[in-house]
Amino acid sequence: MSIENLDEMLQQAFDESTKLYQERGFQRRIGFGKKPAIVSVDLANAWTRPGNPFTCDMDKMDNEIIPGMQRLLEAARANGHVVVHVTTAYQNTNRDDPHTDMGQWHNKIPVEAVDLKDEHLWAIDSRIAPIEGEWVMMKKRASSFSGTPLAGYLRTCGVDTIIVTGVTATACVRTTICDGIQDGFRTIAVRECIGDRVPGAVAWNLYDIDAKFADVESVDTCVNYLNNVDGWNNS
Amino acid sequence: MSIENLDEMLQQAFDESTKLYQERGFQRRIGFGKKPAIVSVDLANAWTRPGNPFTCDMDKMDNEIIPGMQRLLEAARANGHVVVHVTTAYQNTNRDDPHTDMGQWHNKIPVEAVDLKDEHLWAIDSRIAPIEGEWVMMKKRASSFSGTPLAGYLRTCGVDTIIVTGVTATACVRTTICDGIQDGFRTIAVRECIGDRVPGAVAWNLYDIDAKFADVESVDTCVNYLNNVDGWNNS
Amino acid sequence: MSIENLDEMLQQAFDESTKLYQERGFQRRIGFGKKPAIVSVDLANAWTRPGNPFTCDMDKMDNEIIPGMQRLLEAARANGHVVVHVTTAYQNTNRDDPHTDMGQWHNKIPVEAVDLKDEHLWAIDSRIAPIEGEWVMMKKRASSFSGTPLAGYLRTCGVDTIIVTGVTATACVRTTICDGIQDGFRTIAVRECIGDRVPGAVAWNLYDIDAKFADVESVDTCVNYLNNVDGWNNS
Amino acid sequence: MSIENLDEMLQQAFDESTKLYQERGFQRRIGFGKKPAIVSVDLANAWTRPGNPFTCDMDKMDNEIIPGMQRLLEAARANGHVVVHVTTAYQNTNRDDPHTDMGQWHNKIPVEAVDLKDEHLWAIDSRIAPIEGEWVMMKKRASSFSGTPLAGYLRTCGVDTIIVTGVTATACVRTTICDGIQDGFRTIAVRECIGDRVPGAVAWNLYDIDAKFADVESVDTCVNYLNNVDGWNNS
Repeated sequence: MSIENLDEMLQQAFDESTKLYQERGFQRRIGFGKKPAIVSVDLANAWTRPGNPFTCDMDKMDNEIIPGMQRLLEAARANGHVVVHVTTAYQNTNRDDPHTDMGQWHNKIPVEAVDLKDEHLWAIDSRIAPIEGEWVMMKKRASSFSGTPLAGYLRTCGVDTIIVTGVTATACVRTTICDGIQDGFRTIAVRECIGDRVPGAVAWNLYDIDAKFADVESVDTCVNYLNNVDGWNNS
Repeated sequence: MSIENLDEMLQQAFDESTKLYQERGFQRRIGFGKKPAIVSVDLANAWTRPGNPFTCDMDKMDNEIIPGMQRLLEAARANGHVVVHVTTAYQNTNRDDPHTDMGQWHNKIPVEAVDLKDEHLWAIDSRIAPIEGEWVMMKKRASSFSGTPLAGYLRTCGVDTIIVTGVTATACVRTTICDGIQDGFRTIAVRECIGDRVPGAVAWNLYDIDAKFADVESVDTCVNYLNNVDGWNNS
Repeated sequence: MSIENLDEMLQQAFDESTKLYQERGFQRRIGFGKKPAIVSVDLANAWTRPGNPFTCDMDKMDNEIIPGMQRLLEAARANGHVVVHVTTAYQNTNRDDPHTDMGQWHNKIPVEAVDLKDEHLWAIDSRIAPIEGEWVMMKKRASSFSGTPLAGYLRTCGVDTIIVTGVTATACVRTTICDGIQDGFRTIAVRECIGDRVPGAVAWNLYDIDAKFADVESVDTCVNYLNNVDGWNNS
Repeated sequence: MSIENLDEMLQQAFDESTKLYQERGFQRRIGFGKKPAIVSVDLANAWTRPGNPFTCDMDKMDNEIIPGMQRLLEAARANGHVVVHVTTAYQNTNRDDPHTDMGQWHNKIPVEAVDLKDEHLWAIDSRIAPIEGEWVMMKKRASSFSGTPLAGYLRTCGVDTIIVTGVTATACVRTTICDGIQDGFRTIAVRECIGDRVPGAVAWNLYDIDAKFADVESVDTCVNYLNNVDGWNNS
């Protein structure tokens, strides 16, 4: 089975599901609101560069995610929209130490690979580096909202819409989106800017997300929106 | 494309992904702990019986989920393990009323179909009815942990392991599991007792869950565990 | 020691503290925002009427809290502002049952006195009864935000300011306010509409709250604000 | 009015309140559980040393809090109990920047005084410095549980009891305790190890806490407990 066949087969399954979802009233459009923030999840070197257990699919990273992010950041900064760069790292990566801040998660995935002391691992990729003032938020779990002050931060900023990018579709991006809508935000997933590291995972997770948790939109649509909605620079 | 072909092709994709996951240190076993609770998600009539937008695949419901749940409940009750029945309903299902307790979710899915006033819709299916003392917990969002006191309740009970069942794999079950591990619980997903309403969704969601968020185990394994771990009746 | 002397001596302590707080930069004004909600905490019969362990000081209840609430509700409803009525009750009030939804709290206070089956106990006081559409939100803990979907609900409504009333100053009101500001809301405590059941508790809790967590304002000020800020009826 | 008179007057108020609380069933004992953690709140230099807006009462700090903490830490470490050192700092302390991670809190108190870039300010006091492996957890809000992974961390460790120390009684200690019991932990407040910076605040906050949220216990009692309950070294 080639990846092309997988995508085609998945598309057939999605088409069949879409019939049922449409009949039942799923796949509604949540829409863009009035005050957006970009929430960029785990686009740090351990995920965006080769050689780490967390390294993602490099083709999509270099050719779609990073270029898409550059366009989104440019539009956000030009208009004064809030940008949050989320990353993940651990103070105590000793799996046998009950004090580890990895919680239960190291019992499923290799989170010990992101040591807080090695700043390069969790630093945001230099191609999309934060500028002065943008918050780099450290998380310990999958969701950017779980065990972080993100929801309160966004509320303080008056944000009603989160535009979510990053990796991985299966874990940190999907849980961030699911928490986002639960916590009252309009949720947008940027198609070209969400990656993973195994075949099919981006496709089926974006399909599930669009059916129930967020609108999946293109970079073009999001950039256009960011350029046409009031930000802090013009409100 | 028949459902059988879909499953077969998905299995090929899973096999390919498993190679990468194994090399990288994903798909670890979280294991069963010392004090379990069953967290049964949305096995209420709107989901378990025909005729509602939320109605799930009835074959799996009647032939696997309900019979499996009956065996799990019997083992849990015989040993005095905690059981939580989770359901969902809304006081104000008027989508145009800003006061609605549906939040943003009705902007994606038809949550207005579960009106709090129609108790039959959100009552737990009578084939797996709660017994005296078991908590029926009402939620408003996808995850059983989101906007509910569930984590604190389980902590008070000394629970360290949640055995999760119900519907749907895509939404309320998966988000419950993701929150469960984030909040420090060992997370077990019961293969036969998790359903959905569209093709492939159970398969790919259980695959993602097992790779990163919970161990997917059979009813047999879970029943055996429940019968051999100390519960409130024998601790 | 009479209550009058207590208040006078507390005022002296507050005056002394205020000097330090002012020098250090505490006691700032958070101010009213653009979209308010009234969050009315536990003004249900077990707290507002005689004869329950939770019964509060009846003089303040009948002469200040209820009349003040009536004015606030009138202003809120006339302008279409969001009102949330919060109450508390338990499904399983058996303290020896590990399944009880009272959590750890019954190990400090008599929460078993509010049984979900006795609806009169947790129904909102008829003098300030909810009208059609207003959400009556059930909580299990002290804070109206703890284990509830309140934050997400308010975000969905676009609310940026919570005007908090009810009982008790020591517990459910104070924790609601502390969580409110943490979660990004502008927090206003309505002086005449917050009660308790023991001497001094309202005074010192409102003092602490005003120093660090919310602006303590009068009913007059809040009514004036509600009448002059855009609500759902006029936005 | 001298501080001595204030304390005496407050004690009279507490005695009167205690009668009512006892009649009504408040002031119950939550008790120590089987697996404790010390949660030490904001004992960092900005709070424990002179010269900062957050500097606390130095007499109590040097003569009671720090010596008490040294005894608690010695007992915890000797027995392998979990210790969490909590501190607070901000990446962006520009109050006029919508991107600031201070949230709404700088609208009430001078949180801009704790800049993340000045590590000395938020480093734990060297007299009670963390040892290898102990987690130093950064928070942004008052409660150690608000916007942090603390609850999940403690649950992963199997902790059922939190022994809370630090500053201030009014804000970060009290909110940590209130969240602790809400989230299912047995909560103990260590009388000599909780401070503040204004007269009366420790007294009335510990009184409220003992009535409704935690048992207030002495250092002696807590040290004795830590030496006699199984820790990671002996379990």
